[in-house]
Amino acid sequence: MTVNAIVWGENVHEQRDALVREIYPDGMHNSIAVALNADPAIKATTATLQEPEHGLTEKRLASTDVLLWWGHTAHGAVDDEIVERVVKQVWEGMGLILLHSAHFSKLFKRLMGTSCALKYREAGERERLWAVNPRHPIAEGVGEHFTLENEEMYGEPFSVPEPLETVFISWFAGGEVFRSGLTYRRGAGNIFYFRPGHETYPTYHDETVQKVLRNAVKWAHNPQTSYAAIQELPHVPVESALEPIVHRDPKRFFLPAAGSV
Amino acid sequence: MTVNAIVWGENVHEQRDALVREIYPDGMHNSIAVALNADPAIKATTATLQEPEHGLTEKRLASTDVLLWWGHTAHGAVDDEIVERVVKQVWEGMGLILLHSAHFSKLFKRLMGTSCALKYREAGERERLWAVNPRHPIAEGVGEHFTLENEEMYGEPFSVPEPLETVFISWFAGGEVFRSGLTYRRGAGNIFYFRPGHETYPTYHDETVQKVLRNAVKWAHNPQTSYAAIQELPHVPVESALEPIVHRDPKRFFLPAAGSV
Amino acid sequence: MTVNAIVWGENVHEQRDALVREIYPDGMHNSIAVALNADPAIKATTATLQEPEHGLTEKRLASTDVLLWWGHTAHGAVDDEIVERVVKQVWEGMGLILLHSAHFSKLFKRLMGTSCALKYREAGERERLWAVNPRHPIAEGVGEHFTLENEEMYGEPFSVPEPLETVFISWFAGGEVFRSGLTYRRGAGNIFYFRPGHETYPTYHDETVQKVLRNAVKWAHNPQTSYAAIQELPHVPVESALEPIVHRDPKRFFLPAAGSV
Amino acid sequence: MTVNAIVWGENVHEQRDALVREIYPDGMHNSIAVALNADPAIKATTATLQEPEHGLTEKRLASTDVLLWWGHTAHGAVDDEIVERVVKQVWEGMGLILLHSAHFSKLFKRLMGTSCALKYREAGERERLWAVNPRHPIAEGVGEHFTLENEEMYGEPFSVPEPLETVFISWFAGGEVFRSGLTYRRGAGNIFYFRPGHETYPTYHDETVQKVLRNAVKWAHNPQTSYAAIQELPHVPVESALEPIVHRDPKRFFLPAAGSV
Repeated sequence: MTVNAIVWGENVHEQRDALVREIYPDGMHNSIAVALNADPAIKATTATLQEPEHGLTEKRLASTDVLLWWGHTAHGAVDDEIVERVVKQVWEGMGLILLHSAHFSKLFKRLMGTSCALKYREAGERERLWAVNPRHPIAEGVGEHFTLENEEMYGEPFSVPEPLETVFISWFAGGEVFRSGLTYRRGAGNIFYFRPGHETYPTYHDETVQKVLRNAVKWAHNPQTSYAAIQELPHVPVESALEPIVHRDPKRFFLPAAGSV
Repeated sequence: MTVNAIVWGENVHEQRDALVREIYPDGMHNSIAVALNADPAIKATTATLQEPEHGLTEKRLASTDVLLWWGHTAHGAVDDEIVERVVKQVWEGMGLILLHSAHFSKLFKRLMGTSCALKYREAGERERLWAVNPRHPIAEGVGEHFTLENEEMYGEPFSVPEPLETVFISWFAGGEVFRSGLTYRRGAGNIFYFRPGHETYPTYHDETVQKVLRNAVKWAHNPQTSYAAIQELPHVPVESALEPIVHRDPKRFFLPAAGSV
Repeated sequence: MTVNAIVWGENVHEQRDALVREIYPDGMHNSIAVALNADPAIKATTATLQEPEHGLTEKRLASTDVLLWWGHTAHGAVDDEIVERVVKQVWEGMGLILLHSAHFSKLFKRLMGTSCALKYREAGERERLWAVNPRHPIAEGVGEHFTLENEEMYGEPFSVPEPLETVFISWFAGGEVFRSGLTYRRGAGNIFYFRPGHETYPTYHDETVQKVLRNAVKWAHNPQTSYAAIQELPHVPVESALEPIVHRDPKRFFLPAAGSV
Repeated sequence: MTVNAIVWGENVHEQRDALVREIYPDGMHNSIAVALNADPAIKATTATLQEPEHGLTEKRLASTDVLLWWGHTAHGAVDDEIVERVVKQVWEGMGLILLHSAHFSKLFKRLMGTSCALKYREAGERERLWAVNPRHPIAEGVGEHFTLENEEMYGEPFSVPEPLETVFISWFAGGEVFRSGLTYRRGAGNIFYFRPGHETYPTYHDETVQKVLRNAVKWAHNPQTSYAAIQELPHVPVESALEPIVHRDPKRFFLPAAGSV
C-alpha cells in the first residue's frame, strides 16, 4: 500500500533569499519530497502557496493520505477557505505533519485551539533531540538522540494542548528546551508537530530528520475510509431508537415548586 | 476567596417558547446563577446575547474568574470578535464551562479544533450520569450516579479531542452513551464540558446538576495572575541567552554535496 | 509481515462447566486463535495455565509479537515469576490484549498500578458497544455500534489510569455504562483492554468481536527491535558527556547560611 | 483547611556521609518539612525508614493528606507490606509526591507499572527547569524557569507512562533533557514526580524548589472523603438493577452452528 503524501511549501524564502536557495536549490518542499520518496511505500508530490488554490484542490486532497506543511513568512497569505478545506480533510482522516514555523500557521492554530506561541532565537546553535518515547513508530531507527549542529532555537513554554504522546524533546546550546515531537488526533486525522527545519540551515538534508519524516508519514496515514460523517449532526427519531422508548410530553414534567430555584 | 462567575445565556428560547418560560421564568441563566450563588464562595452574575457586546465587555471579562456558556439556536448570532475576546481570556486563565448545546457554539469549536458533532434525539428520555472518576473535584458529593428523568439524548461519537480526564459518562434509555463530563486545559484556562441542560426540561433545577455546576466553577477557577504573555512570541537575542553562545554564520554551514538530496 | 500472537487461556471453566464446554468445545483460547488466524497477517497459537511455565517460556515469548490474555477464576494460580516475565516482555515491545475478566489478573493490575475494580452482574443482558473513536485502527470496520445480546455486565467506576485513548464505551440494559476499549503504552508495549467475553456466552463467536480482536492484534504489534535497555539505569560518566563539562566538587557548593532552612 | 503532610525520608545518607550531614544537619526530611511548614496551610511532620513500620502506621496514614517520599540507597529495605499500605492509601485519595531518586522506589514503580529507568551522572552540573505548563498550580509563582547550579543529571528516556500533564522539563549542562515534573492520578490519589534533590547538593534549601514543594502539596491534596470502595468488586444483583431486567438463561443462548469457529 502506497501512502500518497503532499509536501506543501510556502516557497517564499527560496525565491527571495540567496542563502536559502543555495541550501535548497529546488525549494524546501522538493527536498522534503525527494527524501520521502526514498521510501518506496511513500509517493510524495508537492504544492505551493503560489499555485491556484495553493495547489490543494478538493479533488487532489480527496486522494491525499498525508499532508506536510511548511510555512513561515506568509502565513497571512494563506486563503482561509483552503485552511478550512484542509481542516475538514484532516477530520475525515488525512494525516497532517506540521513542520517548524508551521506552529504559527492558521492551520495548526485552527486545529489546536491555542495560541501556539513559543520563544525563538536565530543563532545557528546546536539542537539535540532526545527520543523520550523510544519505540514510538515516529522514532523508529532514530536512536536515543540526534544532533543538528545549526538550528534556530524554539523555547518553552509552547502553548499547545497536552499531546497524546510526546516523542521528542530538544536541548539547545543556549539553555532552552522544547517539546519537538508531539502527536494529536483530531477527528479521524493523526497530527504530528515536528520542530526542526529553519530555512537558513540544511536541516532537511539531515538523514535522521529525513528518517523521522518518513516514519511520521507512515504513522499519520489512516488507511480507513474517509470519515465524512464527522461534520454531521444526525437526528435519531424516537421511532428508530435502538431501545424502545416513547416520546414523553415535556408539559407533564416536574416543574419546580413556587419559590424554589 | 470568592470566585467571580458569569453565566452567559443565549436567552432566546425563554423569550419565544412558553414552555421554556414556564420552567425558567427568569431565564435559564438566572436560574443557574441563583444555583451557583447558593455557595458563598461563588459570586455569579449573568450576561446575555442581547446586551451590548453580549454583556462581555473587556472590562467585565478582566475581573471574571469563570464563564459558563449556554447557547443553542443563536450560535450564529454571536459576534466573532466577542468569541475571540473570550478565547483569549480563557488562554490567559479564565475558567470556562460549556453547557449542553454549547457543544456546537463558535466558542467551544474554536477551542477544541474539531467539529464537536454528535447525534441527538428529543424524547424526554431518562439519562443516567455515571461518575467514572469518582473523586475528581467536579464529582465531589455527587455519588456514583444520578438520574435525570427527562432529557434530550446526545449520542456518541462526540467529535472532540481526547480529554485530560473523563468525569461523567451518560446512559440513555434509548440505547446510547455519551461522555458527559470532559476536562481540558487551553493555555492557562481550565475547561469543562457538561452535557445536560436541554431548555424544555427542568434540568437546572436538579440539585445534583446544581452541585456539579458549583463544583465545576470552583475547579475551573485558576487563582493565578493572568497569563497575558501567552500570545507573545518573544525573541531571545543571542546576547541574552542563558548559556553563553555565539552567533554562527549560516554561510559557513555544511551544504549538501552536489547530487545529494 | 506476519504478526505472531499467543492466545493465553486460563482453561478452567471449559474443564469444569458443561455449558462453557458446549459453547467452546475446544476451549475459549482455541476459538479465539481460530478467529485471529482468519487474517493471513496473523499467526496465532495458544498457551494455557496448565502447561509448564503456563506455556510462556522465555524462548517462546522472545518470538511473540502480541499476547492475548483471558483469565478469571484462577488469577491467583498464575506464577508471579511468569507475570514478571510477561511484564518485562511488554515493556520491551510485545503487545498485550487483556480480555474481559483479565481486568483483575495479576498482569493487568501490575501494569496499571491501580485496583482495576469495577461492578458486575451476570444476567445475560444486552450490551451495546459504541465506537467513540470511530477511525481508531482497533475500530476499523466495526461501524458506530454493535450489540452482544447476552453478556455479563461490568459497570463504572472502572479503577484504571486515564487511558491514552478511549475506543469503545458500553451501554447495558440494566442501566450501567463501561469504558470497554482502552489503550495504554507501557514502555515499548502497546496495551488494549477489551471488555466483552464472559465464558457462559458465545461472545468470541461474534463476528464483530472477532474483527475487533484481529484489529487489536495488528494495532498492538510493535515491529521495532526489542527495547531491552528499558530496564537499565545507565551511568553516563563525566568524560563521555555530550557537552564538555567538568566534575564540580560538592564541597565547594554553596551551603545554607546558619539559621536558614 | 490545613493539609496534613508527612515527609518520608530514607535517612541513610545523612547518617553515613559527612557531606550530606553538613548540608542537611537534621536530615533531608526535616529540611523539607520545615520548608513546607513555612506555609500556614500545611502541617508537615516526618517519618523515616528506621522507625517501626517506617513511621507509617495505618492510624497515622489515615489522617494524612499528602505523603512526600525520598529514598535512594535503601529502596530494597522498604517493607513490601508498607508499600502496599501506602499504595492503597493513595488509591483512596492520599496525595503522593515522589522526590528525585524515589523514581526507583518500590512505591513509584508499583504505581506506574513501568521500569521507571533513566540515565544519570553525578557531576554537580547546572540544571535549568522550564515550566512548560506555566499556570499549572504546581508552577505557581515559579516563573518561566529556575536554575540549580549543582545537581545530579537524570536523562531521558524516562520509562514512565504518559503523564496527565507535564509541568517541568529540565535542561542539563552536559547535554541531556528530562521531564522533571509529571502529574498522574491513580484512583482518587493525585501523584507528582519532581526530579531535583540529590543528597550531596543543597537543593532542598533552594527557595524555588521549596515553593514548588509547597505548591505540589496543596495541589495533591484531595479534600474529599476516603474512597475506600476502590478495592471492592461489588456484585449488583439482577433484582437491584437500575433498569428492570430479567435473568436470561444462558442455555437458551444462540450457539454456533456446527463447523463454525
